[in-house]
Amino acid sequence: METLHRLEETIAARRAASPDESYVAKLNAKGLPKIAQKLGEEATETVIAGVAGSNEELVGESADLIFHLLVLLSARGVSLDHVLAELERREGLSGIEEKASRSAKE
Amino acid sequence: METLHRLEETIAARRAASPDESYVAKLNAKGLPKIAQKLGEEATETVIAGVAGSNEELVGESADLIFHLLVLLSARGVSLDHVLAELERREGLSGIEEKASRSAKE
Amino acid sequence: METLHRLEETIAARRAASPDESYVAKLNAKGLPKIAQKLGEEATETVIAGVAGSNEELVGESADLIFHLLVLLSARGVSLDHVLAELERREGLSGIEEKASRSAKE
Amino acid sequence: METLHRLEETIAARRAASPDESYVAKLNAKGLPKIAQKLGEEATETVIAGVAGSNEELVGESADLIFHLLVLLSARGVSLDHVLAELERREGLSGIEEKASRSAKE
Repeated sequence: METLHRLEETIAARRAASPDESYVAKLNAKGLPKIAQKLGEEATETVIAGVAGSNEELVGESADLIFHLLVLLSARGVSLDHVLAELERREGLSGIEEKASRSAKE
Repeated sequence: METLHRLEETIAARRAASPDESYVAKLNAKGLPKIAQKLGEEATETVIAGVAGSNEELVGESADLIFHLLVLLSARGVSLDHVLAELERREGLSGIEEKASRSAKE
Repeated sequence: METLHRLEETIAARRAASPDESYVAKLNAKGLPKIAQKLGEEATETVIAGVAGSNEELVGESADLIFHLLVLLSARGVSLDHVLAELERREGLSGIEEKASRSAKE
Repeated sequence: METLHRLEETIAARRAASPDESYVAKLNAKGLPKIAQKLGEEATETVIAGVAGSNEELVGESADLIFHLLVLLSARGVSLDHVLAELERREGLSGIEEKASRSAKE
């Protein structure tokens, strides 16, 4: 079983823990806006590391970003597999179709 | 081979395409700040979907966020495996140690 | 009457225009999440210009950020004066008190 | 003399203070990426307050956002007047021209 699915399970388990013992439980106790805020903060740090940081910083911030995305998905009851299936679905589109579907969105 | 690694390969391949034919090539032609900007935009949309959107919107925005994170990592020459290894490393820490290491950072 | 208050009035007037003729009216027609999304996008661009752009780029992105903040406030029926009054109120606190009130928040 | 210019002067004065005594000095001691990061965090909080918060929360987050924008501008040696002049310049464009110049950018 690979990293992200295992991390998803760990996060689900920690949500049931005491907020005093688990960072994930503490975030969930604060509610959805706080979880979303943390995701936004980690995204900003990833953006900054992307343009002005070292590879090591970029790796660390990217890990933080993915971690908090999984926390947000878990809090909303959305599985990682739903997101992966959506990525698979888009991947199935040809490059040109994909480009057209993206352009239409912008 | 699973979704994210295959997507990483697809992105690497598309970077070599013409900007007229590939969204990824077009983004790369615009440079790192533009790629980071798109990541920030998708993060904002994920934050909004997280607090005020449907599950379907959250899935779509999360997919966009992961896609653009992979585009940024690729442009910087950082592999997905580096980020997954960092998540594994942290996961190896016990819950309490993990919490302490996070608190120290904040 | 100075720049930001005049801009606030212009934005309020444009909200009543046709979405075909006014950018502000078009944004408002799309709803609050879209307005907030634009604010987030401009913030990301300001962040990137702040760490990796020219002064001219930073000025342009900061102007975009303030403009879209005023659009968001207007859409919510919150006046610029409320925000300025809040800044005044904090400014009235001494440096040390201000620091303490900020630390307590973090 | 009005609020934002006075705040700009206060921030400039605090930059010369000890990091132990001033939040602004502490942020500046940490460097530009940290200041930009704080701006991004406050933007995320404003976005969330914009779509899911009370008017009072939106006012507070907007004040934080403007405050940190002024800290970033100050750290880069860019004056508030430059940003206001840019807003004035755009305002001078007619509604239709303004829309065209914005559309061209998107």
